[in-house]
Amino acid sequence: MDKTKTAAVLVIGDEILSGRTQDTNINTIARFLAVKGIDLREARVVGDAQGEIVAALNALRTTHDFVFTTGGIGPTHDDITADAVAAAFGVGIGYHPQAYAALEARYGAGEFNEMRKRMARVPHGAALVANSVSAAPGFHIGNVFVLAGVPAIARAMLEALAPLLPEGRKVHAITIASPIAEGRVAEGLAAIQKNHADTAIGSYPFTTADGGFGVQLVVRGRDVGAVEAAAQAIEAHLSALGAAPQRIIPAVQPP
Amino acid sequence: MDKTKTAAVLVIGDEILSGRTQDTNINTIARFLAVKGIDLREARVVGDAQGEIVAALNALRTTHDFVFTTGGIGPTHDDITADAVAAAFGVGIGYHPQAYAALEARYGAGEFNEMRKRMARVPHGAALVANSVSAAPGFHIGNVFVLAGVPAIARAMLEALAPLLPEGRKVHAITIASPIAEGRVAEGLAAIQKNHADTAIGSYPFTTADGGFGVQLVVRGRDVGAVEAAAQAIEAHLSALGAAPQRIIPAVQPP
Repeated sequence: MDKTKTAAVLVIGDEILSGRTQDTNINTIARFLAVKGIDLREARVVGDAQGEIVAALNALRTTHDFVFTTGGIGPTHDDITADAVAAAFGVGIGYHPQAYAALEARYGAGEFNEMRKRMARVPHGAALVANSVSAAPGFHIGNVFVLAGVPAIARAMLEALAPLLPEGRKVHAITIASPIAEGRVAEGLAAIQKNHADTAIGSYPFTTADGGFGVQLVVRGRDVGAVEAAAQAIEAHLSALGAAPQRIIPAVQPP
Repeated sequence: MDKTKTAAVLVIGDEILSGRTQDTNINTIARFLAVKGIDLREARVVGDAQGEIVAALNALRTTHDFVFTTGGIGPTHDDITADAVAAAFGVGIGYHPQAYAALEARYGAGEFNEMRKRMARVPHGAALVANSVSAAPGFHIGNVFVLAGVPAIARAMLEALAPLLPEGRKVHAITIASPIAEGRVAEGLAAIQKNHADTAIGSYPFTTADGGFGVQLVVRGRDVGAVEAAAQAIEAHLSALGAAPQRIIPAVQPP
């Protein structure tokens, strides 16, 4: 069996760190990778500063099988991701003929100014990632995929690059909700986690509109049988505590 | 004038990396720090694994004036942040008398089980951060503040710890919206950035519901006069291009 592939996300942009913008790309990429059976192990956010981008990228690309960056590939002076990636890899940078031609066709020769041409610049050796929303492509070099920061474009680029990634064994997850305080479940849950060490069990409390307590218990693992066995142990534990267990298919949750 | 203080956020939780949960705490802390005049320079997300938490925390706490962690301080087996922080600082861990007493009072002796007692464990030398939502406190040790992952509780803990942080010189920001494509603004904008080097100018494109293009240009800096001067230069640039500039007070933006 192949070793599980791992990935990291590097979000690039002052606007995330200033609080102007709520990042959603980490979550989008996390869910994309889950479907591919690739483990997202780490995410980082850095500002529009070449030194910080290079340091983070070099740390992540040597630790993980794949790195996905978002942000900083537009036409303005604060879009410095392509230069930073070239610096991290120690390669030059220049216009990619295919990107240049596509952007020139999109804007027309008169409107294809020097700044817009910046969007055709990629590190030497990089290949393009198609952008079905606008003409400006992403790119990939080595194990690094460079995506736009605009969420709709990041999503389109993920779809375009998906065939380049291996299909790993997917993580199977079962979520069980129950109207009981987390602290009452905790001791038995710890024992279940010990007895089902090939799964990872997470516990996420919530409060109901009328002030009651509830908990979502999530079992995750690559062995469907092992996940099912742990889920059944949790259901038995909840029932013994007098709390009805209910399997749910959760939407993306606020934490 | 004092040097600007810097900070980092460390989000801890498998649920963020699996895609189950959309993090919002980075944004909350970013906006909190902006009000305090402290620069958020980096954020990281790691899973519920002690080695990864310790490595990230030690990297961040030696690089920044303050570190804020979120997540992993509940009663269940997957809540390992307190132990990881103790390991990072190389200190022991035990019940904090005040936290223990508050939790015992909250639950009553019969319901204050071993797992709930975990929420009273803090590294030796740590002081508590009050939690006005539920009884389980956060804590701080050295330059590290340890907050809950549940957003409402994280916000309450930020309010409680605010007096412990210094007041820095705040970043002043002006946001100018205009119905023009980013690529048409970019060349003049780069020149304005060069001439106003004591500000940071960001460019964020958007599309309108009817398919039109627009851009938000954000000028940030600690000198109000410098920010105003750069903003006026941008407004003149937009007007010269025939695009009406409009100063706006933005809500938190999706990227």
